[in-house]
Amino acid sequence: MPQGQVSVTPDDGLTTRQRRNRPLLVVHTGVMKGKSTAAFGMALRGWNQGWSIGVFQFVKSAKWKVGEEEAFRALGTVHEQTGQGGPVEWHKMGSGWSWSRRKGSETDHAADAVEGWAEIRRRLRDERHGVYVLDEFTYPLKWGWISVDEVVEALTERPGHQHVIITGRDAPQALIDAADLVMETTKIKHPMDDGQKGQRGIEW
Amino acid sequence: MPQGQVSVTPDDGLTTRQRRNRPLLVVHTGVMKGKSTAAFGMALRGWNQGWSIGVFQFVKSAKWKVGEEEAFRALGTVHEQTGQGGPVEWHKMGSGWSWSRRKGSETDHAADAVEGWAEIRRRLRDERHGVYVLDEFTYPLKWGWISVDEVVEALTERPGHQHVIITGRDAPQALIDAADLVMETTKIKHPMDDGQKGQRGIEW
Repeated sequence: MPQGQVSVTPDDGLTTRQRRNRPLLVVHTGVMKGKSTAAFGMALRGWNQGWSIGVFQFVKSAKWKVGEEEAFRALGTVHEQTGQGGPVEWHKMGSGWSWSRRKGSETDHAADAVEGWAEIRRRLRDERHGVYVLDEFTYPLKWGWISVDEVVEALTERPGHQHVIITGRDAPQALIDAADLVMETTKIKHPMDDGQKGQRGIEW
Repeated sequence: MPQGQVSVTPDDGLTTRQRRNRPLLVVHTGVMKGKSTAAFGMALRGWNQGWSIGVFQFVKSAKWKVGEEEAFRALGTVHEQTGQGGPVEWHKMGSGWSWSRRKGSETDHAADAVEGWAEIRRRLRDERHGVYVLDEFTYPLKWGWISVDEVVEALTERPGHQHVIITGRDAPQALIDAADLVMETTKIKHPMDDGQKGQRGIEW
């Protein structure tokens, strides 16, 4: 149960209930690893609410695979077989978006990223998912492949009750301004400082 | 795949492989929510490796329930039925530790906490799990119910390949010193600042 204390009563004309159920735009940014891990942890809670989970990884390589993918796919199967939790879709740019006729180009990542965002925008309009994880989505924004203004507009105007969680370094200021919750994980101490390389089960 | 660069080659007599597979002691601390969420996200990766996951929540109330609990229990069932991933155990102090004959006392939390730690210590000795999540474990340390020195000793001397993830505010310095990885999630912006209360699927 949440322990947080509300420090201010807002003057926004909403009831507490309306405010409580406001869908959130969450940004996990900062230089540390762990941003995506935290986002997927948050999506676990949404799954348990029976919400549809849509994960969109803006990664270049088809080989990129984190342990969370298998775990969420298993949870999607649990939902299909027993009705527990919510449905799960997991899409990756590098392997070619599953809905796309184009193979992941491995050459024109900008076009792939634009195509991914166009699909997400359609889904937001159609209220397709309860939780969207746009993993590593700050990079195509940073590199100018996708318009930040367009993203902020689409997110701000999204209908219904759709939570959106965006991860990646260097989130643009306009995105941070539009977000309800911005988290940054900072490292106090990390094994790579001592020359340890990443290991399975921990880093992926 | 991990992108981290190793900046230092350590002079510890270990091979890269040995160092890579060193079991980690991870502490998620700081005042923000999201510590447990990040820890459970990390445990998802361990589950996918087929490791046994043991969660021990040092919470006072039997009613405390986060969405992750149902999700992990579902993953445990997936493992039992299909062999995918690893087994999952989820124990809570407030409801009376499942292995204990005593009911959760709701009156003597110190005794309950001590009992929980004694069991974890036995399991570490027996190499029972691949990943331990000791959720909210810093509080019984902070309140002096459990000896920090004893915990650090047991963790430092734990045999085999057992990752331990500890969450909670105000982690004692001796625990931070012993840890391989210490993470702190900081808030840049949070909806509770605007008077929004916690909501299901997000905060629990």
